[in-house]
Amino acid sequence: MKGSKPLPLIVGRKPLLEALEQGIVVEKIFMLRSATGDEISTIKRIARDRNVPISQVPVEKLDGMTRAQHQGVVAWTSLLNYIDLQTAISYVVDEGQVPLFVLLDGVTDVRNVGAIARSALCCGAQGIILPTSQSASLTEEAVKTSAGALHKIMLCRVPSVPQAIDILRLNGIQVLGTQMKGSVPIYESNFTIPTCIVMGAEDTGISKDVLKRADQLIRIPMARSFDSLNVSVATGMILYEAVRQRMLDAK
Amino acid sequence: MKGSKPLPLIVGRKPLLEALEQGIVVEKIFMLRSATGDEISTIKRIARDRNVPISQVPVEKLDGMTRAQHQGVVAWTSLLNYIDLQTAISYVVDEGQVPLFVLLDGVTDVRNVGAIARSALCCGAQGIILPTSQSASLTEEAVKTSAGALHKIMLCRVPSVPQAIDILRLNGIQVLGTQMKGSVPIYESNFTIPTCIVMGAEDTGISKDVLKRADQLIRIPMARSFDSLNVSVATGMILYEAVRQRMLDAK
Repeated sequence: MKGSKPLPLIVGRKPLLEALEQGIVVEKIFMLRSATGDEISTIKRIARDRNVPISQVPVEKLDGMTRAQHQGVVAWTSLLNYIDLQTAISYVVDEGQVPLFVLLDGVTDVRNVGAIARSALCCGAQGIILPTSQSASLTEEAVKTSAGALHKIMLCRVPSVPQAIDILRLNGIQVLGTQMKGSVPIYESNFTIPTCIVMGAEDTGISKDVLKRADQLIRIPMARSFDSLNVSVATGMILYEAVRQRMLDAK
Repeated sequence: MKGSKPLPLIVGRKPLLEALEQGIVVEKIFMLRSATGDEISTIKRIARDRNVPISQVPVEKLDGMTRAQHQGVVAWTSLLNYIDLQTAISYVVDEGQVPLFVLLDGVTDVRNVGAIARSALCCGAQGIILPTSQSASLTEEAVKTSAGALHKIMLCRVPSVPQAIDILRLNGIQVLGTQMKGSVPIYESNFTIPTCIVMGAEDTGISKDVLKRADQLIRIPMARSFDSLNVSVATGMILYEAVRQRMLDAK
């Protein structure tokens, strides 16, 4: 959140519970590890059901977020809507479209998420998949960097990357993990079939879960060994390749 | 320069003249419009010869940059080296390479310039062309965002876009202007021949000079009409298309 306008807060157990029950979309919950009680249990259950990330924090963090009586719980209201991944896939298929999703596996810089949303929307991807365990909080800066694209594309929160991959594959969507040393150059991969592109963190790349479970590991061909693309640029290149293939395929 | 570490300063007429005579690379000169005299004339002549941008500013700007006696002249030392465009082209040709350049026609965000340098280096472009009249000052943030790429690629300052295009075309390098509504989708353009890709500002696009003088106006094919790619992502897509064609062509 550095240098960024903070998201609107919900402070305290009852206010958060009421907000959740009213269907208000919550971006992230900050909770004392020691917090217990009926309300806390209910909050945790609803959060799990809706894939709202819960961050367990020390009391100093909560005290720093608000001067109000927080009772061990503070939450950020979301600027965006989220949709269940299976619902999103079914919607795309019902519309007669060929699924194209982007799964962000550890991409945490909000500017990169914003730029990726722009590219995804331009290139006809229908949704972005964000694992709650390790994704960026979508702040006003993310929305701004996306030039509004984050409002126009489906955003799917999933509890974990393996669960997302299972759902994708059950729906017949191939999972392509992107790696510097992937075996298949992207122009030899087939993007005309239902596809989910997985992008990893700039420093550590895609996680072991993806390495193990992906249908294919793809790479962006490089003319030089200076292998250091910005992750939003790399995603753009792959999405362009998908558009190119789909356009030529439609001819 | 907002939020960015300022570049090292050279303050005053004699110090700047001595620095220029010693071959120190200057990023930008800030000069009072009313400044005159022999030293000023010499500074202007050397700056013109080396394509160092001169910004004419009010005295408040100079007073804000330094408390020292500036005598109407302050300059930023450059973190990078620049090379003459014709020299760069001749070097590439002598090396037996097919020229691939990127001309930035009004791209002023240093983060975008940095990301473009990364992509250019990865995709085998040999140089980036920066018109002095309207380019970004390459600050530490630009170098950082480029992950060092700005140190490894040739940077060519040119007085103006038309002059750059003339030099490129005299050297048999085609000039491709990128535009939302360009007539040729990039996968139908030929990047295997000597090429310079021109990217414009995010808001206003490429300038009239480019529209008039480009050999071809190209566009990135879009699946949806939400036509708003980040300029560094768009440049990455085109550079990837160039790599793809050149790799397939080499087979």
